[in-house]
Amino acid sequence: MTETMDDISITAPWQERHLLGLEHLSAEEIATILDLADQFQTLTEGGSKKLTVLNGTVVANLFFENSTRTKTSFNIAARRLGADTVDFSASGSSLSKGETFVDTALTIEAMGVDLVVCRHRTPGAPHLLARHLKAGVINAGDGTHEHPTQALLDMLTIRQKLGRIEGLTVALVGDIRHSRVARSNIHGLLKLGARVIVCGPATLVPRTITQLGVEVAYNLDEILPQVDCVNLLRVQFERQRGAFFPSIAEYAHLFGMNGDRIRKAKDGLLVLAPGPINRGVELTPEVADGPHSVILNQVSNGLLIRMACLYLLAKKAGK
Amino acid sequence: MTETMDDISITAPWQERHLLGLEHLSAEEIATILDLADQFQTLTEGGSKKLTVLNGTVVANLFFENSTRTKTSFNIAARRLGADTVDFSASGSSLSKGETFVDTALTIEAMGVDLVVCRHRTPGAPHLLARHLKAGVINAGDGTHEHPTQALLDMLTIRQKLGRIEGLTVALVGDIRHSRVARSNIHGLLKLGARVIVCGPATLVPRTITQLGVEVAYNLDEILPQVDCVNLLRVQFERQRGAFFPSIAEYAHLFGMNGDRIRKAKDGLLVLAPGPINRGVELTPEVADGPHSVILNQVSNGLLIRMACLYLLAKKAGK
Amino acid sequence: MTETMDDISITAPWQERHLLGLEHLSAEEIATILDLADQFQTLTEGGSKKLTVLNGTVVANLFFENSTRTKTSFNIAARRLGADTVDFSASGSSLSKGETFVDTALTIEAMGVDLVVCRHRTPGAPHLLARHLKAGVINAGDGTHEHPTQALLDMLTIRQKLGRIEGLTVALVGDIRHSRVARSNIHGLLKLGARVIVCGPATLVPRTITQLGVEVAYNLDEILPQVDCVNLLRVQFERQRGAFFPSIAEYAHLFGMNGDRIRKAKDGLLVLAPGPINRGVELTPEVADGPHSVILNQVSNGLLIRMACLYLLAKKAGK
Repeated sequence: MTETMDDISITAPWQERHLLGLEHLSAEEIATILDLADQFQTLTEGGSKKLTVLNGTVVANLFFENSTRTKTSFNIAARRLGADTVDFSASGSSLSKGETFVDTALTIEAMGVDLVVCRHRTPGAPHLLARHLKAGVINAGDGTHEHPTQALLDMLTIRQKLGRIEGLTVALVGDIRHSRVARSNIHGLLKLGARVIVCGPATLVPRTITQLGVEVAYNLDEILPQVDCVNLLRVQFERQRGAFFPSIAEYAHLFGMNGDRIRKAKDGLLVLAPGPINRGVELTPEVADGPHSVILNQVSNGLLIRMACLYLLAKKAGK
Repeated sequence: MTETMDDISITAPWQERHLLGLEHLSAEEIATILDLADQFQTLTEGGSKKLTVLNGTVVANLFFENSTRTKTSFNIAARRLGADTVDFSASGSSLSKGETFVDTALTIEAMGVDLVVCRHRTPGAPHLLARHLKAGVINAGDGTHEHPTQALLDMLTIRQKLGRIEGLTVALVGDIRHSRVARSNIHGLLKLGARVIVCGPATLVPRTITQLGVEVAYNLDEILPQVDCVNLLRVQFERQRGAFFPSIAEYAHLFGMNGDRIRKAKDGLLVLAPGPINRGVELTPEVADGPHSVILNQVSNGLLIRMACLYLLAKKAGK
Repeated sequence: MTETMDDISITAPWQERHLLGLEHLSAEEIATILDLADQFQTLTEGGSKKLTVLNGTVVANLFFENSTRTKTSFNIAARRLGADTVDFSASGSSLSKGETFVDTALTIEAMGVDLVVCRHRTPGAPHLLARHLKAGVINAGDGTHEHPTQALLDMLTIRQKLGRIEGLTVALVGDIRHSRVARSNIHGLLKLGARVIVCGPATLVPRTITQLGVEVAYNLDEILPQVDCVNLLRVQFERQRGAFFPSIAEYAHLFGMNGDRIRKAKDGLLVLAPGPINRGVELTPEVADGPHSVILNQVSNGLLIRMACLYLLAKKAGK
């Protein structure tokens, strides 16, 4: 109950006021976040689950897209650090009364908010906030652009389970075109020295993505034997009005993870999925509930990653 | 501000990890909850209203049916014990993105939730959670099955006002067929030695209910002179599409509590109602606001009962 | 972290159990609130942002009209004092199940709520609550009647920026007819010795309002040179179905604040707006973001005013 900032050590100096994406972070900065997350695990498992280091800090969740899971993860993370949280949503907010997005954010900041966690359907929305606010801004997903804390929790899970990220081969499978999770994972994994293969239907894997430094594959079975980790992106029925693949059944057949594919893969294959999962689509129940799946570890690590990011930005803001 | 678990004594050893219903609790276990609720009343009235015994514990409200009142009661109860709370609702949650009910719950648990309070329209839903979660599960109403904390607060109110439950005659009036409140009250009251009469329109009082050990009556005026407590179940307009009784006016005339009926009843008759009440239907304003009504005591006792249940399950979970 | 009530001094004895409007407060009582708000600014800026003086107090937000901004301001204010908060909204509440407004409030109070913050479309709704509840009631806007904390934060902002209120000339511009903000400002400003001019389209400025002691004007340009502060009421598109003025463009032309009008006004003119603002309607971006605008100060002061009001009522209630 009386941990202080002194008990928490940060591997390398932290200079960022905002966490907008992994594209512009260095390998050292990413490692700093992962190390701090590990440290929060030790701290909260060893003793009290609730710290007091961010007592008096107010974190606002500014979610313009529905996301119970990410919002709750940020909420619990903030409160574990001793911070208070307030939630804003698009419906019922001042935006529906004609206020601009930036005015809404400035108003929230003027209420004494120190950190803003923002999800928005428009790529760059959190960057716009960061330019106008003194508060620290965390991007919790901006359209098809980035979702840095998701990629960080994926990397933390891999590092915990396999001991390292450098030198591993990670396959991102599914809708690469629209996935902010894929984009953030690509930036983060490459910076930490992994080999990244993106794999999915040709309609959902743009050739141009090789410019980022990844390899492209259209046949999951061909790449599986080389792969240490497979990250199964969600088929977002609610987003994809257009028909990017013929049918769900065909998608599941070609790109879904199932028992057969597990048996053809490396022994220690890690199966990640950002969730919420569609059982029978991205993976079968046999895989989801099997020993290769680290899906629930990802959720728990999400808490630790968000604690680390909130802590670093709050400290940078002088809290 | 510095009460510890040592200040709180539990009458009998508590072994249950979950609170799913009163059907499978013993009389001793029910008494343990009621005793602990009394103790919380003394503790919070005497000194500070806010305890710290569940500091670091996270309670998730997983409500798939609207219920501001029950959810708020659990929220305030949890925070009085020093716990943090997070709310989930069906709308906007991952369920609408195709996730299964159990996956949603496992995800919430992986975020570090210790206790899950669940309301669901399907009987048995909290039992399904209990089979999959390490977290403690409290049933806050599952379809027409059970609503144990409501029955416990009814019993606490009776015990506080009349000094005992054993030997009393309690009438449950109204829609017995669809009422989880009736079912939980029946189990609890019988275990504690009360005589229970269920009374309502024949369409809403199934004959088979006598198998549980209760008596059945269709005429409220005939049984009133024998009754110590009458519990007026809510007419749930929002649930009953079918016509189980001819009209609201007729229901109120035959089964509503009014001044005339009060005058024909025992002197110290207690009038309970789970609420929200429909004035002029289950009871007249004269009765609702009169000296026999203990409706607001029930609400206050709801807080104490929920504190007791949360505390017992958190302690069992080793928090 | 360990401020106590002893550190907080109140200028004059406080006797009110509720804050329903400024009409019935004395000048001394209003000054007491403003002084206490100033004090909270010093306390929270100097040291820890979070106090503990209302630890154990529960504040319920009972909002029957959407208002993220006011509700959040009350929430943050309450938590800065160490209180817990619970939110109720019209949708999903017991009201939709047939419960009366007063029964809902009594139920909430029975759950241990100490202070109720109420917004309602019906003038007098908070007064009805105040007659039935032991809890303190704060009016957060009742129809077209009053919105006392908004007027108080406007006055605090004026006093901070100009050093006094007595002797100043304040223009309230826009829809005076439907504005609870105007009404509360009129009462408060007149009590503290300001001269108040209301100005707007004839359809929205009833002649009878002079009975309150204000002057009426229909031409903003004529009065501007005499004015120290101009408070630009929101054009409430969502409320005004009827056509009170020909077009938005015409409104902006005649009553909107713009660079030209700023240049014709007094040098130190203060521009207030309760927000959320419609850029290009009540004021141009040039004015909103310019040196005369104190809009964001108003938001920050809202927090301090609400802390002061919650504190005074909680103390009066013996918390």
